[in-house]
Amino acid sequence: MNTGTHALTLHEDRLFPVDAVQRAIARRLYANVAKLPIVSPHGHTDPAWFAENKPFANATELLLVPDHYVFRMLYSQGVSLDALGIPHQDGSRAAVDPREAWRLFARNFHWFRGTPSSMWLNHVFHDVFGLRVRLDATTADLYYDHINDALQRAEFLPRALFERFNIELIATTESPLDALQHHAAIRQSGWQGRVITAYRPDPVVDPEHEQFPSALQRFGELTGEDVYTWNGYLWAHRQRRAFFAQAGATSTDHGHPTAATADLSRAEASKLFDKVVRGQATAEDAELFRAQVLTEMAAMSLDDGLVMQIHPGCFRNHNRELFKQFGRDKGADIPLRTEYVNALKPLLDRFGNEPNFKLILFTLDESTYSRELAPLAGHYPALFLGPAWWFHDAPEGMWRFREWTLSSAGFYNTVGFNDDTRAFLSIPARHDVARRVDCAFLAKLVAEHRLDEDEAMELAVDLAYNLPKKAYKL
Amino acid sequence: MNTGTHALTLHEDRLFPVDAVQRAIARRLYANVAKLPIVSPHGHTDPAWFAENKPFANATELLLVPDHYVFRMLYSQGVSLDALGIPHQDGSRAAVDPREAWRLFARNFHWFRGTPSSMWLNHVFHDVFGLRVRLDATTADLYYDHINDALQRAEFLPRALFERFNIELIATTESPLDALQHHAAIRQSGWQGRVITAYRPDPVVDPEHEQFPSALQRFGELTGEDVYTWNGYLWAHRQRRAFFAQAGATSTDHGHPTAATADLSRAEASKLFDKVVRGQATAEDAELFRAQVLTEMAAMSLDDGLVMQIHPGCFRNHNRELFKQFGRDKGADIPLRTEYVNALKPLLDRFGNEPNFKLILFTLDESTYSRELAPLAGHYPALFLGPAWWFHDAPEGMWRFREWTLSSAGFYNTVGFNDDTRAFLSIPARHDVARRVDCAFLAKLVAEHRLDEDEAMELAVDLAYNLPKKAYKL
Amino acid sequence: MNTGTHALTLHEDRLFPVDAVQRAIARRLYANVAKLPIVSPHGHTDPAWFAENKPFANATELLLVPDHYVFRMLYSQGVSLDALGIPHQDGSRAAVDPREAWRLFARNFHWFRGTPSSMWLNHVFHDVFGLRVRLDATTADLYYDHINDALQRAEFLPRALFERFNIELIATTESPLDALQHHAAIRQSGWQGRVITAYRPDPVVDPEHEQFPSALQRFGELTGEDVYTWNGYLWAHRQRRAFFAQAGATSTDHGHPTAATADLSRAEASKLFDKVVRGQATAEDAELFRAQVLTEMAAMSLDDGLVMQIHPGCFRNHNRELFKQFGRDKGADIPLRTEYVNALKPLLDRFGNEPNFKLILFTLDESTYSRELAPLAGHYPALFLGPAWWFHDAPEGMWRFREWTLSSAGFYNTVGFNDDTRAFLSIPARHDVARRVDCAFLAKLVAEHRLDEDEAMELAVDLAYNLPKKAYKL
Repeated sequence: MNTGTHALTLHEDRLFPVDAVQRAIARRLYANVAKLPIVSPHGHTDPAWFAENKPFANATELLLVPDHYVFRMLYSQGVSLDALGIPHQDGSRAAVDPREAWRLFARNFHWFRGTPSSMWLNHVFHDVFGLRVRLDATTADLYYDHINDALQRAEFLPRALFERFNIELIATTESPLDALQHHAAIRQSGWQGRVITAYRPDPVVDPEHEQFPSALQRFGELTGEDVYTWNGYLWAHRQRRAFFAQAGATSTDHGHPTAATADLSRAEASKLFDKVVRGQATAEDAELFRAQVLTEMAAMSLDDGLVMQIHPGCFRNHNRELFKQFGRDKGADIPLRTEYVNALKPLLDRFGNEPNFKLILFTLDESTYSRELAPLAGHYPALFLGPAWWFHDAPEGMWRFREWTLSSAGFYNTVGFNDDTRAFLSIPARHDVARRVDCAFLAKLVAEHRLDEDEAMELAVDLAYNLPKKAYKL
Repeated sequence: MNTGTHALTLHEDRLFPVDAVQRAIARRLYANVAKLPIVSPHGHTDPAWFAENKPFANATELLLVPDHYVFRMLYSQGVSLDALGIPHQDGSRAAVDPREAWRLFARNFHWFRGTPSSMWLNHVFHDVFGLRVRLDATTADLYYDHINDALQRAEFLPRALFERFNIELIATTESPLDALQHHAAIRQSGWQGRVITAYRPDPVVDPEHEQFPSALQRFGELTGEDVYTWNGYLWAHRQRRAFFAQAGATSTDHGHPTAATADLSRAEASKLFDKVVRGQATAEDAELFRAQVLTEMAAMSLDDGLVMQIHPGCFRNHNRELFKQFGRDKGADIPLRTEYVNALKPLLDRFGNEPNFKLILFTLDESTYSRELAPLAGHYPALFLGPAWWFHDAPEGMWRFREWTLSSAGFYNTVGFNDDTRAFLSIPARHDVARRVDCAFLAKLVAEHRLDEDEAMELAVDLAYNLPKKAYKL
Repeated sequence: MNTGTHALTLHEDRLFPVDAVQRAIARRLYANVAKLPIVSPHGHTDPAWFAENKPFANATELLLVPDHYVFRMLYSQGVSLDALGIPHQDGSRAAVDPREAWRLFARNFHWFRGTPSSMWLNHVFHDVFGLRVRLDATTADLYYDHINDALQRAEFLPRALFERFNIELIATTESPLDALQHHAAIRQSGWQGRVITAYRPDPVVDPEHEQFPSALQRFGELTGEDVYTWNGYLWAHRQRRAFFAQAGATSTDHGHPTAATADLSRAEASKLFDKVVRGQATAEDAELFRAQVLTEMAAMSLDDGLVMQIHPGCFRNHNRELFKQFGRDKGADIPLRTEYVNALKPLLDRFGNEPNFKLILFTLDESTYSRELAPLAGHYPALFLGPAWWFHDAPEGMWRFREWTLSSAGFYNTVGFNDDTRAFLSIPARHDVARRVDCAFLAKLVAEHRLDEDEAMELAVDLAYNLPKKAYKL
């Protein structure tokens, strides 16, 4: 399919409008934001990287194995996860030469044409590793050797990359059961890189999570609270939230199947919790419980000031056999139609008008942008819209996010970009894409005489830098 | 944020495609429609303005207080409605200097960047008031004084503006309980401006409306019918519809939470109505009752020729506390996912093929444009599509409306533009935006050789002027 | 409305981006695919045309009467189906002069402005019939006579057109009850045109189909199986599938109201089938039965290699009166909101990871492209996405399909174009539109530096030619 070696370029005008007038405006706007520090308030990098600062193993381990965007596409075309060396649920791994896995990937890299993964990867290849030929079957080994060599050098250690990427701050995401030792180690190391955590309590909030019983037990042990009573359970959350806040956290994050919230009386909530801890909760009970906990988390946010994030609407682990063999996060999560207007009302009735509460909403259901999310965020003081997320973080998705939310929510009820990634090397590429798309979008408004260029200039900086800092209290 | 004074301009090519070829076509199309009279068949201006022809009070009362697009955005960023002087439910008002409210607005006008409100307001500032500097903190007083001065002059009285705006006809919306005295006064005054009403019976149709019991009683008093029987209730509607038609109405309008229609037998309907008037209707009964009334309204339209409009899919007064304190229409209405295919079947089974019946459908759920509404309107002779509505009346929303309905419904199953506004001064701006977007859309089709320019020219005039007149029988 | 005679042109750059840079790229890409043979793996042409090779009757019979895209638009504007000579359910027809029907169509051809029908028809007028004036009231007779004259000539016989259109292969669609005698006749005739069938078992699968009881009986007679037992019923399917495969079929096609699948035990399925054949199935039973049959069909596909297609989400025969009088397929089918993630899970849990199973999914609900379909196809090896279908086969719909599926599914989990038409003469026009839109889309990616031009060139050929051949095993 790809037989020759082709030049790999990263055009300075990529993602800008093709029309010369708009492109010129986009260039001017981008020039002002291109070099701004990266603020990454929501993501999934491993804090151990920055605590231990050890070299990454090899190209395959660094770029293929952790990136479900990449291996899901390969899998969809018939490549087995074993052939890529993806670890099984039980920790075992098929005996596969990482170089062979890399070749398999390289040979089929054309399957990614036009996808965000190809953009991010090419950016990494070009800018991080200095490669100047396209990846394909003929260049697989060249890439593999070149990347592996680089990874052994000091300037490719995690902290060096962090600094080279001009990251002002990065947030990771941890379970309440996490001791946050890596974050402590980073702070104690004297290194100036700012790596904070975020409180993600799903395993102790979702009765349908396979680890819920053991997680709940550990939650009690860690906090000394009687987490089998509703009251003790809530105090355990308060304790861990405080511990996370001390470690720098400014936000919580909640990944629920729906956006349902509830506002039960204390007696009702307590009764429901009893069913949950006795393992007697039906699917409906579990949904109601998650809904109630969201409202409790909002109440705690009013007290401790942590910004609340809801990431709803995903059917996790949709592929039964794959889940059995390989476990979670293997590219088999599928978005669901999601309802917000009725779902959020109980929480909003209590806290939607609070000036000191911030709730950042995300969606995997773009049909809600203009119909539900923008009207809600364009009204409630507490609500803000998170950026285009996950399946929608390609240029087209980012563009639709702006087009569909602008009219009712404006720009200032949004919070700038989240890279939301565990693919550390792709972070500059992702922020660069977001900045380019926003500048392209603003350039269109200027060229259509809907915005003056000085206003667009201010907006470009706000979207790239000021809004995330403000929204996440950074 | 905005410290200097910047020029306020209204570019002659605003909203046109940036590409030179398309822009040139758009200009030619627009030149032909720019000066056409405004036909405004659906809106919410106050007929008292035209009956009494008194000066508007001041900039704040004219431009902020009645415009929920404006104050909802301010509210979403933490400005209290009291600080803007918005009246409470009980008629009281926080003691606020309107100049201070105006300054608060001016200082935060950047929150509106890119929104339709900023376009409409800037159009009003520039064209109606002749302002030539941008609104910001430094120009707030200049604006306030300049606008207030103007409002005292004869050429800013409502009738003078009506004429200056080149309005051929405007429809207001009234409840069946309205005596239509302002419309009578206008007709008797000898003034030539054409201001008609539209029949909007929601308060006597929706058992869940907080005024339903009192409205029903008044409905009986006004008509002399026994409105506590199904038969008398229907006759009361017929009477008031005839009264509205005599006052110039050519349409009815129905704002329901869903698009549900029903076709009950007379006995079933009568039994349901008994539950409703006894206050025993469940939420499901209320929904069925509204559904049945829509079908009855369609039957009456066949008799009296009034065009029927359905505006479904809004969760009204979503913000509990705000509703308690400030009442309805305070920017807390949120769109809901809306289903049409099953919902409309009972009504369409009876009247969908009637050549003398016209039903204009609107939606706040854009996902229905291509899936449901365009296929329905592209088949049923009785059905027409209303334009992009409310949260979707920005250029992006109008463009999506055309892109998503064109293929199945064409242009001729749509009805031109509705401004649907209570912001009188913004009417020329709104129609101008709609005409520009339609010309831009047509220019794209011409430039892509999908339409000849003479066809686009004819279409531009049809969309701006002929279709609304035909659809609303004006 | 159209009083003069205007030139009819088919611009060589139609549907290409207007911007000169993008247009130049699109031209280069298109030059490479414009002349590729047409592969039409899914459609509804009549195999009798190619078996008998008789002349088409006249313009009205050829272009109006069989094309529900055309007569639904006329109907929506108040033209009766009788005035067009559309046959009734009972086979009778209003006495209408086909020339008068043609004039009625011609006079109102402006209603089609901007729709795909107008593009396809103008392409047919221009390229197939060599007409050079636009169709309108003044040219109706000229068109009618010119087309009728042409149809009498040898080069307008079905086989001659098939060859002139450069069709490499066309698939028709038949019921399991069909004897496939036309396909046999074509093979025996020595003519080289490749016309294959596809297995569409809806009448023996859908208990709510009005012909289900009689179809089931005939299914048993044809196969000699006891189709009133679950086991015999399944064997009857296997037999007919094998018969279809022998006649060249490479695929099955399933048009269901929803995408529901089920995976019942043999005992449960057998019990459900008993209710169905006794006519005791509720609506819910019927839905479950259709769902179970889909999974059985998938199981059979694993055995016999037929590619499976699911076309869900249509409310058939929505117009009650029209259905009574005129029967099925009269332009009154309306898309429904459609759910895939839960619906397909039972089938995917069994066969989603099978390397030798291919399931091609279609939708009439565009909101599922980015949310459900692209993520599913971008993960499951067995799943592929069919192109923008039916109400979405206009340039805008095709563009949205690419924009909304690219990020998660890429290009290589899609299967190229389906014309899905019974309008034989429009086939080159439809494929040409699809190729142009894909080239335009690719040109944008190249111009935005997201793809190199050599990659786009390869993709253009893959989308137009290689992917359909591979996906449908042709």
